[in-house]
Amino acid sequence: VAAVDMKSQTESQIKQLMDEWIAAVNAKDVERVMALYASDVVVFDYPPPLQHVGIDSHRRSFEQWFAMMPDQVTCQLKDLRITAGDEIAFARALNHIVSGKMDQWVRATVCFEKRGREWKVVHEHVSVPIDEKGRGLTNLEP
Amino acid sequence: VAAVDMKSQTESQIKQLMDEWIAAVNAKDVERVMALYASDVVVFDYPPPLQHVGIDSHRRSFEQWFAMMPDQVTCQLKDLRITAGDEIAFARALNHIVSGKMDQWVRATVCFEKRGREWKVVHEHVSVPIDEKGRGLTNLEP
Repeated sequence: VAAVDMKSQTESQIKQLMDEWIAAVNAKDVERVMALYASDVVVFDYPPPLQHVGIDSHRRSFEQWFAMMPDQVTCQLKDLRITAGDEIAFARALNHIVSGKMDQWVRATVCFEKRGREWKVVHEHVSVPIDEKGRGLTNLEP
Repeated sequence: VAAVDMKSQTESQIKQLMDEWIAAVNAKDVERVMALYASDVVVFDYPPPLQHVGIDSHRRSFEQWFAMMPDQVTCQLKDLRITAGDEIAFARALNHIVSGKMDQWVRATVCFEKRGREWKVVHEHVSVPIDEKGRGLTNLEP
């Protein structure tokens, strides 16, 4: 029972971090978003490059994204599933992003490690599928 | 020291599963690939749909992919990083896929759970980035 409690406690901590990510993005607060990531995070993001290695590259990408979107951003997660161990955890979800005329669903996978007492995102992967002509499918809905 | 040994033993098991995935894909053996996945796997794949829920949908997608590629397929992983706990693990890598005229790098994130004595893939995410015009960036190299 203790192990089960520990696991559900960790899942609840990860859920709080996912909620905090959503709140920080909705507030367009780059530093608040970045506080969730490990300095050595590797991100496979929606825009290029193929990968961001380290938080500085990821931060610049977020700053550009927020700058591109003059309107309010609203993100909402669907089908969130968290899998937690003692020291590592991962989560997947569909993320519904709405800002002005933009209304899009993306897939998100987020991987966590416990660093000291804190859980940090060490890897993230965000994307949409690609059709047979090489176009990003930016209008799919779950 | 025992905990460290256990962790590195798990990482080595996960590495073997990643190698087996590559070998099974290179052999174009759908059932050998599918043996690596949990029946309830959720896949965010390169082609649509937004998500495959369950192994049957994922299997059909793999069959279509292999049928599309009459030539030999060769996959090779770069920058593979495995993070392992006692019961769960995750891995990320860049995957270089070559088949006939196709020569492409994709990003791959693979999440594992220990089910009984066996490690199974419970979640996988494969993609390329999207440019500002919505095109999949199928020609990026690391």
